Amino acid sequence: MVNQKYLDKAEVLIEALPYIQRFNRKIVVIKYGGSAMLDEKLKANVIKDAVLLKLVGFKPIIVHGGGKEISKWVGKVGMEAKFINGLRVTDSQTMEIAEMVLAKVNKELVSYVESLGVQAVGISGKDGGLLKCKKKYSNGEDIGFVGDITEVNPKILYDLLEKDFLPIVFPIGFDDNYDSYNINADDAACAIAEAVHAEKLAFLSDIEGVYKDKDDPSSLISELHIQDARKLIEDGYVGGGMIPKLNNCIEAIEHGVNRVHILDGRIPHSLLLEIFTNKGIGTAILREDGEKYYHEHE
Amino acid sequence: MVNQKYLDKAEVLIEALPYIQRFNRKIVVIKYGGSAMLDEKLKANVIKDAVLLKLVGFKPIIVHGGGKEISKWVGKVGMEAKFINGLRVTDSQTMEIAEMVLAKVNKELVSYVESLGVQAVGISGKDGGLLKCKKKYSNGEDIGFVGDITEVNPKILYDLLEKDFLPIVFPIGFDDNYDSYNINADDAACAIAEAVHAEKLAFLSDIEGVYKDKDDPSSLISELHIQDARKLIEDGYVGGGMIPKLNNCIEAIEHGVNRVHILDGRIPHSLLLEIFTNKGIGTAILREDGEKYYHEHE
Amino acid sequence: MVNQKYLDKAEVLIEALPYIQRFNRKIVVIKYGGSAMLDEKLKANVIKDAVLLKLVGFKPIIVHGGGKEISKWVGKVGMEAKFINGLRVTDSQTMEIAEMVLAKVNKELVSYVESLGVQAVGISGKDGGLLKCKKKYSNGEDIGFVGDITEVNPKILYDLLEKDFLPIVFPIGFDDNYDSYNINADDAACAIAEAVHAEKLAFLSDIEGVYKDKDDPSSLISELHIQDARKLIEDGYVGGGMIPKLNNCIEAIEHGVNRVHILDGRIPHSLLLEIFTNKGIGTAILREDGEKYYHEHE
Amino acid sequence: MVNQKYLDKAEVLIEALPYIQRFNRKIVVIKYGGSAMLDEKLKANVIKDAVLLKLVGFKPIIVHGGGKEISKWVGKVGMEAKFINGLRVTDSQTMEIAEMVLAKVNKELVSYVESLGVQAVGISGKDGGLLKCKKKYSNGEDIGFVGDITEVNPKILYDLLEKDFLPIVFPIGFDDNYDSYNINADDAACAIAEAVHAEKLAFLSDIEGVYKDKDDPSSLISELHIQDARKLIEDGYVGGGMIPKLNNCIEAIEHGVNRVHILDGRIPHSLLLEIFTNKGIGTAILREDGEKYYHEHE
Amino acid sequence: MVNQKYLDKAEVLIEALPYIQRFNRKIVVIKYGGSAMLDEKLKANVIKDAVLLKLVGFKPIIVHGGGKEISKWVGKVGMEAKFINGLRVTDSQTMEIAEMVLAKVNKELVSYVESLGVQAVGISGKDGGLLKCKKKYSNGEDIGFVGDITEVNPKILYDLLEKDFLPIVFPIGFDDNYDSYNINADDAACAIAEAVHAEKLAFLSDIEGVYKDKDDPSSLISELHIQDARKLIEDGYVGGGMIPKLNNCIEAIEHGVNRVHILDGRIPHSLLLEIFTNKGIGTAILREDGEKYYHEHE
Amino acid sequence: MVNQKYLDKAEVLIEALPYIQRFNRKIVVIKYGGSAMLDEKLKANVIKDAVLLKLVGFKPIIVHGGGKEISKWVGKVGMEAKFINGLRVTDSQTMEIAEMVLAKVNKELVSYVESLGVQAVGISGKDGGLLKCKKKYSNGEDIGFVGDITEVNPKILYDLLEKDFLPIVFPIGFDDNYDSYNINADDAACAIAEAVHAEKLAFLSDIEGVYKDKDDPSSLISELHIQDARKLIEDGYVGGGMIPKLNNCIEAIEHGVNRVHILDGRIPHSLLLEIFTNKGIGTAILREDGEKYYHEHE
Repeated sequence: MVNQKYLDKAEVLIEALPYIQRFNRKIVVIKYGGSAMLDEKLKANVIKDAVLLKLVGFKPIIVHGGGKEISKWVGKVGMEAKFINGLRVTDSQTMEIAEMVLAKVNKELVSYVESLGVQAVGISGKDGGLLKCKKKYSNGEDIGFVGDITEVNPKILYDLLEKDFLPIVFPIGFDDNYDSYNINADDAACAIAEAVHAEKLAFLSDIEGVYKDKDDPSSLISELHIQDARKLIEDGYVGGGMIPKLNNCIEAIEHGVNRVHILDGRIPHSLLLEIFTNKGIGTAILREDGEKYYHEHE
Repeated sequence: MVNQKYLDKAEVLIEALPYIQRFNRKIVVIKYGGSAMLDEKLKANVIKDAVLLKLVGFKPIIVHGGGKEISKWVGKVGMEAKFINGLRVTDSQTMEIAEMVLAKVNKELVSYVESLGVQAVGISGKDGGLLKCKKKYSNGEDIGFVGDITEVNPKILYDLLEKDFLPIVFPIGFDDNYDSYNINADDAACAIAEAVHAEKLAFLSDIEGVYKDKDDPSSLISELHIQDARKLIEDGYVGGGMIPKLNNCIEAIEHGVNRVHILDGRIPHSLLLEIFTNKGIGTAILREDGEKYYHEHE
Repeated sequence: MVNQKYLDKAEVLIEALPYIQRFNRKIVVIKYGGSAMLDEKLKANVIKDAVLLKLVGFKPIIVHGGGKEISKWVGKVGMEAKFINGLRVTDSQTMEIAEMVLAKVNKELVSYVESLGVQAVGISGKDGGLLKCKKKYSNGEDIGFVGDITEVNPKILYDLLEKDFLPIVFPIGFDDNYDSYNINADDAACAIAEAVHAEKLAFLSDIEGVYKDKDDPSSLISELHIQDARKLIEDGYVGGGMIPKLNNCIEAIEHGVNRVHILDGRIPHSLLLEIFTNKGIGTAILREDGEKYYHEHE
Repeated sequence: MVNQKYLDKAEVLIEALPYIQRFNRKIVVIKYGGSAMLDEKLKANVIKDAVLLKLVGFKPIIVHGGGKEISKWVGKVGMEAKFINGLRVTDSQTMEIAEMVLAKVNKELVSYVESLGVQAVGISGKDGGLLKCKKKYSNGEDIGFVGDITEVNPKILYDLLEKDFLPIVFPIGFDDNYDSYNINADDAACAIAEAVHAEKLAFLSDIEGVYKDKDDPSSLISELHIQDARKLIEDGYVGGGMIPKLNNCIEAIEHGVNRVHILDGRIPHSLLLEIFTNKGIGTAILREDGEKYYHEHE
Repeated sequence: MVNQKYLDKAEVLIEALPYIQRFNRKIVVIKYGGSAMLDEKLKANVIKDAVLLKLVGFKPIIVHGGGKEISKWVGKVGMEAKFINGLRVTDSQTMEIAEMVLAKVNKELVSYVESLGVQAVGISGKDGGLLKCKKKYSNGEDIGFVGDITEVNPKILYDLLEKDFLPIVFPIGFDDNYDSYNINADDAACAIAEAVHAEKLAFLSDIEGVYKDKDDPSSLISELHIQDARKLIEDGYVGGGMIPKLNNCIEAIEHGVNRVHILDGRIPHSLLLEIFTNKGIGTAILREDGEKYYHEHE
Repeated sequence: MVNQKYLDKAEVLIEALPYIQRFNRKIVVIKYGGSAMLDEKLKANVIKDAVLLKLVGFKPIIVHGGGKEISKWVGKVGMEAKFINGLRVTDSQTMEIAEMVLAKVNKELVSYVESLGVQAVGISGKDGGLLKCKKKYSNGEDIGFVGDITEVNPKILYDLLEKDFLPIVFPIGFDDNYDSYNINADDAACAIAEAVHAEKLAFLSDIEGVYKDKDDPSSLISELHIQDARKLIEDGYVGGGMIPKLNNCIEAIEHGVNRVHILDGRIPHSLLLEIFTNKGIGTAILREDGEKYYHEHE
């Protein structure tokens, strides 16, 4: 007789069925950053999750950062990393290092995906003119080659998806003079998700999600309509680094992304669990009239 | 913290990854018959398995019989079902009833698949000229409209697969005069699997698989190369209804099907477990040089 | 010298030229029912007409009923056919029989078309989710599984036409719970013609057409604009079974079908004669501004 | 009641059904010349036949000559037409006139076809590099710009057929220096039929066909296998202008054309009658193993 | 060492780069007429220019006249060319000659293009129903088969461009009765450019361009916005044959052509120089808001 | 009057016509390295040449190295570049730096091409599994992550060319364990040219070409059949770094590349001059039976 363990396995697969069905052939943009990039085991989990999404018919696009690795290499060449208001001051040599390091991280991810039997191509925002930008100022101060996205040309992404590749993007853009700029990876993921009309945008980072009360760990919100998200910000319930992230989520939804997920990259397979099970991991931000899927967190 | 139950779920999905990858966009012919057709719960399981295969990128084709239901309706109109050497004696009225009943069963399956969000089309072997046949004799005796397949025209199946439908076939064929014939569903599944160069052919029926010793329930064989299958028959280790089924398996492999599975339809999700886990359910028949995947049965 | 007989043949073919040209690659929905289904010779004529339309470049779709055959089989299993206001009271067993019998009739037509060298596929309204419906009440009374069409999904028809098949449809639909419903074949033909934007919809039944005066056989109308058709109903000039048929015609034209024909299926090749010659057979219903083609009936 | 005349019309159409089916989407090359080009009524018949073939799904290509019209215009400019062994002596001015006159005839045919609602394009053998040739000598004598075809580039014909045009070709070719050459229209039709793998090649000219005995008008042969055609030539039963025509037929069949027809263009609709009825008009030349369709001439 | 001559060559090619880029895959209609048709060397230059445009990715269409050649042949057959208000009085025999001569000129151009390795197809306005027209009167006087274009069906041009041919058109059209009409080549080029939404329309004729002062040869205008062109006409600065040409230019731009060039066909490669260098040859007419590219004439 | 300077420009463009024609839509692999990478002006020339090739219909692929830049960055992080037999000893940190630096150089080239209006995508040999390799030993000695190509998967290149991108490749590959390896850029260019069946492979480096006598600068060979190239090596006429380069050329031609060019990247536009003029720059290596195009060097 077949024992229970195997029947349970089958049940898990069957349970995923409605989710596979609902999002089949939909584009999912995954912003990958934070601790999940540094821990080899977590990295393996994230990449496997993305590969599984690809194999069951989704169209994932990975956008990644690499801030800590950049700082490490800035140090190696005897320079010092400098930040103003959380933005890296990026002179031309820092810019060169940032581009080199992000490219290296990118190719590691490409190789990992390829090793799992899925075709991947790694590109920057300069390839195919993907991410055009202009200089960003920090409270009026020139902090060098830090860019704000002004235009996304998604042709290269559509072409790679059509040819069955998993695109992996690192956020270096170009301006009118074709100079290079460092772009915030969250912003890049958000702009790309909008441009390709993604069904989902998932931020994998080191936070668990949005809390009703930022001081109460039991108050994690599973699903949040944007009107409520806007109110949380206005009313001061969220703070710090969460505000720009939440604003990104709100903007993405306002521009046509259907659902944005803030996920804890430190939880193994949080992406898979969020998408394939009726267990809400982290916080999902929904359209004003978006239907809630999940029960409260257990 | 996310509890272990959810992490286990993720692991099951990840475990399926290499199997999804290996068989992606491959055609799988599923012969569906026996008790699994009569028990509503088992039926639900089989259909869900087929739908999941479809959704994760396989191209399943279901071929089904309906013997018991035919006999029931033969009874309802006041006739008596008659068999010679296991073959239904099929006069023209029986033929009409067989076609009607199989069509009814077929449309039930179509509706079930459609209700799970996957497009299905039910056809007979007459649609698109799929199954051409000639009269089959039982030891020289004319038993009516019982047919042997002489030619398969798979165009309609390729067309439906291309248009993303799940085809469901019932085994009524036609001869040179376009008269209708009842065909054995195992034979139909086998001939179709050959014609479409299926990667896999799975027989879901009321037997657990092939035994080394038909009297020893612990001797179930997980994987069997065709040369060994031929030997089992020659040496008399298998008998009864197993011989034609095994011959069908051998023939399918000789005509280009890569792997044939004999599965117990009474085990829930046996199809899914066979394909997506490293647990062999039933018996797989392999090419002479086919690689064995599974450990022995536990 | 070539004798006159042959020259006359050539003239008939040449005479068809402008009609072939006008309707080339247009969809023609043929509702096939009544006596023409029971008489083998008439059936042969109808099918040959449809096949000829297919071969000269039209895209015919056949929609058929089978009421008399259903009643026969209801009788065979010892039940009694029951009607309320002309609608068959359809309990679940009657529903099963109706579906089985229509499927049998369908496959006979498929085989006939195939035998003439044209590919055919027979489908019900459940295949590909073609005909969605809801329960129809007869003056508020529940008469079982009798359905009103609420939605047509023509994808399967477009797919089959693209792949060069002649689709043959029998009118069984499904509701929200995927339960089966018997649908009036005239309604199904009408709804399908609307959904595929048919150029023509032809009703082949046991009436000669519409009469100016229902009691005067010499008053058959060749061509009728819908505004005049509406007036005929209002003014009480038509009656009985003609009213719903005429309403179907009016509705079809209101939803984009260009021309609807009411033809007498008992006249051999009435379909061909209506389409390929300047002889009006039966009655054609036209748009408000539709151009009349034919001379009066001789 | 529908009178017999209409039923007879329907029967003629139905009788054409198997022929339409057999040759559907096949290429038919029609060599059009002789008296049928000069008589306006015969011309109308030929063009209508070709248009009907196009509309019912064949792919006709018309190749035409214009010898008598060329001679007329040579005379108009005060020159004299000169022939050696039946070949027009073609100095450069005669060549210019030949090209001009054939182009004029060509555009008349184009307009006629267009007026019947079918798209036509008229081209010479120079357009798209269709007919490459070299100088032809008449028993060693240089007779000017008279060409033998050395190479056919059928791309332009395939392109026009794909885009649903009826191509009409006049036989002016070019040599290595891109000088223009007059080509025999029978040769051009034959070479084109070979290059496009035509199903049929029909010569419409002023002869009734091949006779068993050239002096006995009752001995017209309906169907002739090429081995018998070769024998007729060897044994001297055919003579005069028939020999090169018959050789063209033989060569076309040797190069893959399935059936070649020699038809009397003076019989109205001889093309249509030959193709759509079981009445053999003229003589059909068949492959060695070609099946005979027709009864003897009545 | 590579000498300067070669480096200069490279610079010329590089200089063409932005022009190739700007007009890549755009349609350019070239009206070819005047002296450039009579001088063999100029003809070679024009054709080579068109071929180069084709090879570097443009989609040229050549429209040509042949007035002088027509007059020559009218004379050859002993008739006299007659003009009223600059329009050729075109009786039916003149019409025949015009069509024949234009076809001959057309096929010469086709052969020339083919000899340079580019596929060409020559068509008239009758092929594919390209140019429909009605009789044009000269101040109310019937001057025979002279036509005004009423409708352009560009399908044949799109088809030929798609199949990578260079279409060469001569301006003979047809009316409702499919009679042939002679059309002014400038008008034909203009109507075709509008119908295919050409990027550019270039008139190659025997004038250098538009002058600010028609009596001052140094006042050639390089670029002219249509509002200024209209004003030049109103204010009487241009006169004679320039008015209809300029009106054609204005109309073409009003109907969507981006830029119209009036070029001197007597200057070798004026077409190439106008398109590929920053040297304005002749006069370019621009949209109201069109950007000027060129410096003044040197 | 148009002055001579402009006419000369036109002549240069016309002179390029046969070359554009001959190589239209052919793949040209350009190995770009040496001094031409360091001098900004030379770099601009090379990129403009490649862009012009793209715009006039060729399909260029750029493969580049970056040895000097790698050494510079190895120095920056305080390490020392080490070479054995001309191969860089590549420990894992050197490997990281090599990948980062090549990626940086790659993206600079991408931006340059994009700024000229042509879409470019930069990839490594890891993207799309392009360059698989195994460890290369230097006379049996392990020198780290230096790879020999074992397999090329050109899918990503074909996909990018189909989508109209100019692919720019840097030579980092992967082995069975998906570890990264540094590959010689000449080898990569050669392997890619073979895999995509390039028409041409051009090596742009710091040598003028092959000399008959390596000590006689006037003995530069314009065109060389491979059998003669083999002989030059055997007979000791070429030496040093030329031997592996010449062997690469020979191998490329043996594997189907039609013509290999050794060009001096220090000469401005040497690529353009070699391809578009009848002036041989550098040395072309031809198939055994390849036709020589050029005159001797002047």
